[in-house]
Amino acid sequence: MIQSFNSTLLENTVAELSKLPGIGRKTALRLALHLLRREENEAVALGESIINMRKNICYCSKCHNISEKEVCPICNDSRRDSSVVCVVENVKDVITIESTHQHSGLYHVLGGVISPLDGISPSDLEIESLVSRVQTDGIKEVILALNPTIEGDTTNYYIYRKLSAFPVKITMLARGLSIGNELEYTDELTLGKSIQNRVLFSDTFSPKK
Amino acid sequence: MIQSFNSTLLENTVAELSKLPGIGRKTALRLALHLLRREENEAVALGESIINMRKNICYCSKCHNISEKEVCPICNDSRRDSSVVCVVENVKDVITIESTHQHSGLYHVLGGVISPLDGISPSDLEIESLVSRVQTDGIKEVILALNPTIEGDTTNYYIYRKLSAFPVKITMLARGLSIGNELEYTDELTLGKSIQNRVLFSDTFSPKK
Repeated sequence: MIQSFNSTLLENTVAELSKLPGIGRKTALRLALHLLRREENEAVALGESIINMRKNICYCSKCHNISEKEVCPICNDSRRDSSVVCVVENVKDVITIESTHQHSGLYHVLGGVISPLDGISPSDLEIESLVSRVQTDGIKEVILALNPTIEGDTTNYYIYRKLSAFPVKITMLARGLSIGNELEYTDELTLGKSIQNRVLFSDTFSPKK
Repeated sequence: MIQSFNSTLLENTVAELSKLPGIGRKTALRLALHLLRREENEAVALGESIINMRKNICYCSKCHNISEKEVCPICNDSRRDSSVVCVVENVKDVITIESTHQHSGLYHVLGGVISPLDGISPSDLEIESLVSRVQTDGIKEVILALNPTIEGDTTNYYIYRKLSAFPVKITMLARGLSIGNELEYTDELTLGKSIQNRVLFSDTFSPKK
């Protein structure tokens, strides 16, 4: 049931908030009333930060990650290894991989994965720009870090085919046991992969580069 | 772990969003990235609606409900019965009760309930202003519609004592079975109340005024 709020200002905010993913009308109302109870400057800070962010964040012309300048800080960082590029689905995956501190190279954000059911074809993704980076930027290794799903694997294979003409090493993230999980609760596919791709125990002390 | 976003604008928005109740850093990041993917005017509309709402909504000087003017539309509505006042805990309860279309009188928003553990004493609530409304506004009935909790009942009793000196009828919301629930799953206290306060079956056809 649509509730009447006796205030178009509240009504507007609830309508706008409930456009956000995972936020229904009830939650939106709770958030709006929370903002009304807090200090004015807190609500204004939230509103302004959203507007500023949306107006000033653009996408890096090289890796398509979010950026405040034409080229993002990661692409601009001379300490990073520009010969290794990690291909990810979206901006969030960059943040996630950065938080592991295990990748010192650059990124390439595809903007999605190939998914005919959702109408996403290779031309909707930043695949051509990846190919031209490989051609011109002296990239030695491309790490495929898409999600381990059918769509991710399809996209991995598509990129692999596209890049196979170039002298570049193409790797993908290892699939195997999750740390902390038990064998008993690991699915057979993953467990099978972890047997196929078993590693030398001695390598776990001094990981190979 | 605090993740680095390589963008202070994104960082700010995530920080502001995660101050909202029930929204952690992960959800805040998801919302912020969603806003980045949408059209700019959509994000700006959200930000501006929050700022406008917070800057322009005030509280009704009579009933303390939210309002865009000094006196809210409900208090100003001459079609409503100004001799009946429904006492509620907060603004949301006004919206909830309005959605039942069963109350045609006015409201009085306390702004909370007496709760010594949370440091909320009667003087923090709009109880004195309720007493003066009863004294001066010709109110014939006060409906206590606080939540059926210990704190709600304490506050009900406090208001009842405060108002007992005045010639005003004091009623409270009925407690009983929830419609659609089964007897078996109704707690004993509620079931007990529903037996004590049983009503004439014939009254359910023509509810008494």
